[in-house]
Amino acid sequence: MNPNHYCIIMAGGIGSRFWPKSRQTRPKQFLDILGVGRTFLQMTYDRYSSFIPADHILVVTADRYRDLVREQLPQISEDHILLEPYKRNTAPCVAYATYKLYQENPDATVVVAPADHLIIGEDAFRDTIITALEEASQSDRLFTIGIEPTRPETNYGYIQVNKAVSKKVNGITSCQVKTFTEKPNAELAKVFLETGEFFWNSGMFIWSLKTIKDELERCLPEVTSLFKGGEEAYFTPQEKGFIQRVYEDCPAISIDYGVMEKTQKAWVFLSDFGWSDLGTWESVYERSDRDAAGNMVSCAVPMVDEVNNSVIICDDPDKLVVARGFDNLMIIDMPDVLLVCHRDDRTVKDILTDLTMKDKVDKYL
Amino acid sequence: MNPNHYCIIMAGGIGSRFWPKSRQTRPKQFLDILGVGRTFLQMTYDRYSSFIPADHILVVTADRYRDLVREQLPQISEDHILLEPYKRNTAPCVAYATYKLYQENPDATVVVAPADHLIIGEDAFRDTIITALEEASQSDRLFTIGIEPTRPETNYGYIQVNKAVSKKVNGITSCQVKTFTEKPNAELAKVFLETGEFFWNSGMFIWSLKTIKDELERCLPEVTSLFKGGEEAYFTPQEKGFIQRVYEDCPAISIDYGVMEKTQKAWVFLSDFGWSDLGTWESVYERSDRDAAGNMVSCAVPMVDEVNNSVIICDDPDKLVVARGFDNLMIIDMPDVLLVCHRDDRTVKDILTDLTMKDKVDKYL
Repeated sequence: MNPNHYCIIMAGGIGSRFWPKSRQTRPKQFLDILGVGRTFLQMTYDRYSSFIPADHILVVTADRYRDLVREQLPQISEDHILLEPYKRNTAPCVAYATYKLYQENPDATVVVAPADHLIIGEDAFRDTIITALEEASQSDRLFTIGIEPTRPETNYGYIQVNKAVSKKVNGITSCQVKTFTEKPNAELAKVFLETGEFFWNSGMFIWSLKTIKDELERCLPEVTSLFKGGEEAYFTPQEKGFIQRVYEDCPAISIDYGVMEKTQKAWVFLSDFGWSDLGTWESVYERSDRDAAGNMVSCAVPMVDEVNNSVIICDDPDKLVVARGFDNLMIIDMPDVLLVCHRDDRTVKDILTDLTMKDKVDKYL
Repeated sequence: MNPNHYCIIMAGGIGSRFWPKSRQTRPKQFLDILGVGRTFLQMTYDRYSSFIPADHILVVTADRYRDLVREQLPQISEDHILLEPYKRNTAPCVAYATYKLYQENPDATVVVAPADHLIIGEDAFRDTIITALEEASQSDRLFTIGIEPTRPETNYGYIQVNKAVSKKVNGITSCQVKTFTEKPNAELAKVFLETGEFFWNSGMFIWSLKTIKDELERCLPEVTSLFKGGEEAYFTPQEKGFIQRVYEDCPAISIDYGVMEKTQKAWVFLSDFGWSDLGTWESVYERSDRDAAGNMVSCAVPMVDEVNNSVIICDDPDKLVVARGFDNLMIIDMPDVLLVCHRDDRTVKDILTDLTMKDKVDKYL
């Protein structure tokens, strides 16, 4: 393992799309939604700890999830759990980790990864990330990972690549990025697929600390000026108070918008390992083990009959769930919430946003 | 109030069609399924106690429901709660009440009524029952109440009447019964409706004790011989042991099949008060207050959107129920059971019968 390789896991999301299974008190990354015995955060840690030293793995999360991280990843030292007092999107998260880690090892090369994605084909994944880390340590490029699309997906952002400016190392190709695009509509997604120039934006980044620090300072001086001042605070009892003040003043901005879309140094490694952001129940449903009728059933005592292509989840080990005569529904029964809706209902998140305004239902989020 | 008028409420059913709201431990008659603040048993008591002396109302129920009856109807003396040790259908129930009450008042005239029916139009109902009680006390007829059908219902039995042999008292007509019929199929139910000769069998009976005693002895000697021997036991501490032995030996048989279909004395009072046996969720749904989209929703914290013609019931006062994007479903969420099926799914009862064979799910019945 390369002593300069680090991993920063971003685990601060609230995953409201998985409500009511995910809650503000225990969001998606802390849940074993696939029923495999490990939470998304743990699976992410496992994935990286096979080729990055365990004490080089950092987690950035929200203050309130500190105990969840410590409980699920007791291997990680307290110094490497970075706590954000407020939600400020990904640029401040990256800036905080960058400036703090810079103090520990200015020669670090890091992979920044979301805590809640699914990777299938760990070998191809590992080869790609290690190659990207090596490349990043020898260049001033900001690498992303682009996944070769297998369908005209409208739930992902895409990266358009410049295949004319590319490099092949260990059989793995990286290209200059032409543009980052938002989630396309169905028509545009088809065009993307046909051109062969567009790759799914996996949300993973690989760069040297030096390069990202320079680019943060160039692209987001209003953010970096705040974190730069913490050199004396990081790794000391003053860090918490310092970060509290910084986050109070810090604007919310994504690393994609704040840096990647502005920099001239964006490159993308092309890969085709199985990847899903598992951003919706539908994507979990598609990846899950289903019965012959296409149902994903996770109940202790199920009686499911004449039901097709549905998701039925009840964690209560003593509850009988009788489901009969319907198709394409999602039933999630939690102790304090019952959700019954279409399996692919993407508006539940919107309802929740509405709900937050109502005191009555706030406690269910 | 006539001192010879009595009412016998049959409250021993297990109402499995209302599962999982009704359970073997607390069946339908002990529930407030309509959400009106009174259970079916209490509503039945209220209905009769407006014209029958409170201490002339008896309840026959199963041993295990004794405490439920005492709790819900504390007005009824212990002597008037008749406990059946085994389920033996309605003929033994009627025989037990008949022989016991005969000892209290051999001149009694009684109305025998199920504990779990809905009556709308209490005045018409009261006039009909009082008239029937008066007629029964002056004749040896066994009266039933036939409800003028308003639709070709296939869930009810019908009574075919002989309009040529009839009598009108207080503006209320009674006719000789031609036949009792089983639940018809849809085609036959239409024919029934068109002829004007068929009335819904409401399951209520009105007769003098003397007459029913004679007819029981004539039609069901194997049953009556058992109960007859209890003259020394009724109203004594020996009653319980006596009844235990009688029910062990007693065959299960319905009063309809055992007496009404055999006797020459069956007459029917024709009425058109609103009546439903509330035998299915569908019938409760039809009688319930529904929202503009046709939903019967009984939840403390409901969020129902784009849902039509559905039943949603959750008794937990703290549970949020989010229902979106479906039609015609029935969702009943109990602490230990969740049922999701078509609103008019009449096979749930069959599943339960299957279930009873499985130790695993026995505790949910």
